[in-house]
Amino acid sequence: MSLPNEKSTRSAAVTVIGLGPMGRALAGAFLAAGVRTTVWNRTPGRDRELVERGAISAPTAEEAVAASPLTVVCVVNYDAADSILRRDAVTGALKGRTVVNLTADTPDRARDASAWAGEHGVRYLDGAIMTPTVTIGTPNGVFIYSGPEDLYREHRPVLDTLSGTHTHLGEKICRAAAYDIALLDIFWTAMAGFNHALAVARAEGITAGELAPFAAGIGAILPAVFEGVAEEVDRGDFSDEGSPMTSTASTMAHVIHTSEAHGIDASVMRAAEGLARRAIGRGHGAEGFHRVAELLGRN
Amino acid sequence: MSLPNEKSTRSAAVTVIGLGPMGRALAGAFLAAGVRTTVWNRTPGRDRELVERGAISAPTAEEAVAASPLTVVCVVNYDAADSILRRDAVTGALKGRTVVNLTADTPDRARDASAWAGEHGVRYLDGAIMTPTVTIGTPNGVFIYSGPEDLYREHRPVLDTLSGTHTHLGEKICRAAAYDIALLDIFWTAMAGFNHALAVARAEGITAGELAPFAAGIGAILPAVFEGVAEEVDRGDFSDEGSPMTSTASTMAHVIHTSEAHGIDASVMRAAEGLARRAIGRGHGAEGFHRVAELLGRN
Repeated sequence: MSLPNEKSTRSAAVTVIGLGPMGRALAGAFLAAGVRTTVWNRTPGRDRELVERGAISAPTAEEAVAASPLTVVCVVNYDAADSILRRDAVTGALKGRTVVNLTADTPDRARDASAWAGEHGVRYLDGAIMTPTVTIGTPNGVFIYSGPEDLYREHRPVLDTLSGTHTHLGEKICRAAAYDIALLDIFWTAMAGFNHALAVARAEGITAGELAPFAAGIGAILPAVFEGVAEEVDRGDFSDEGSPMTSTASTMAHVIHTSEAHGIDASVMRAAEGLARRAIGRGHGAEGFHRVAELLGRN
Repeated sequence: MSLPNEKSTRSAAVTVIGLGPMGRALAGAFLAAGVRTTVWNRTPGRDRELVERGAISAPTAEEAVAASPLTVVCVVNYDAADSILRRDAVTGALKGRTVVNLTADTPDRARDASAWAGEHGVRYLDGAIMTPTVTIGTPNGVFIYSGPEDLYREHRPVLDTLSGTHTHLGEKICRAAAYDIALLDIFWTAMAGFNHALAVARAEGITAGELAPFAAGIGAILPAVFEGVAEEVDRGDFSDEGSPMTSTASTMAHVIHTSEAHGIDASVMRAAEGLARRAIGRGHGAEGFHRVAELLGRN
């Protein structure tokens, strides 16, 4: 990470659109870093605490974006972002200014927003925040961006005041959203597995607290497993003598059986088992479960 | 961990039934620790390397179990274990001896095996190995057991020669299998999410290697997330202002949309989203996704 340019940071100004929990955390971190921060939210009243800490409350979205060279948007989804930014008065005020859209949505929507921005002379970066609100303003925050690199470099000093790790993933505007989607896929699928495991454990007389240290042990091995599997997938190496797909499918069947014997829905594991069974049916039974990553990609 | 009793270890003997990758790793670790090790496998020829290292190759399963006071069984599932142990000659030879069954299967099968053992004067502990074959004989191996505690204490010196962490989870025979099933539920669901994410990423022009460090970052936060959620579930606290279920369901819909727009099967995430949508339909939209752990348990 480069050091922020002190001069440009000290004279920096930012507008934050959207004051949900994440938007408030962003605005609070900018304020704490001494950045002149203007805020606006569709539903009024969300900015009280921020104003007490020095934020400027803009009466309208157009006045908010006109107050700073850089507007950071963090709302519920792109429908909400579009309904704010694509009003004529706001679009006009944004002309020649920069929007960094940290709203989570799909790569498609990032492409669409970038096209709209190009048509209206709005300078546009897409981005995503990979960590919870409590990490904002701390070294644990993880931010990813995509879009024009010179634009990223220009605004990096202000973005860096949020602390944490900032990574520019490339010029293709949809990259940040694509990474975001892939990582959310991993996180929420894992959480579905964890919550299901808690239900099965309880049916077997095991409390969440009893299972937790062992579950944390499983979580702790995942980073190395992910890195190892990723390398094999890129190499096209799907061998896995120690854990063939037939054995994975049999394990999954045990989970389904135990779950359903207690009357617990096993639809998530049933879908996962379906992926394994289809791979076995296509002749990949002796390979590792990661063959599924390759098979899913074949249309 | 207590220190192994040196005297009893030095004079110790063990039989290993099942010489797949895990059984071979177990027998190899016993041999490396200086334990007199007898081995048997249904399909012959799997013991060559072990015999070169000092293992005793038994010609039949009954001779194998008769050679040691303790037999460790590690085969593909309980159907395989039962077909070996429940032959009259083997059952007879096991009378008064101990079986530690490290075969992975369901809690039901552990209960059934324990009942059979009780009827035939076989001393019986159930167990599971939570880590891959490469960890056996190293400090990274994780072993769990359930069944009579005095039996566990009696054989602990020999089991300890496998190195790693050994935990007795209680006298209820099915506990080790229940923990095993719950932890495998977490692991394989997470792996399904990871492999799916690799497919979505590639469709968006992102290689597995590019995604891997970020995926590892997601993995790295899971242990703390699991511990935190487990505590809330045990407390019955399902509030989660920062990440309500409606927002989780919307994120899941983004993953599904992006996946299916590329023609990639999203059945696992569709099932997970179904859990969230049903919870929302039951009035839990403002709560965290971990309400699902509680709802799944209600029959």
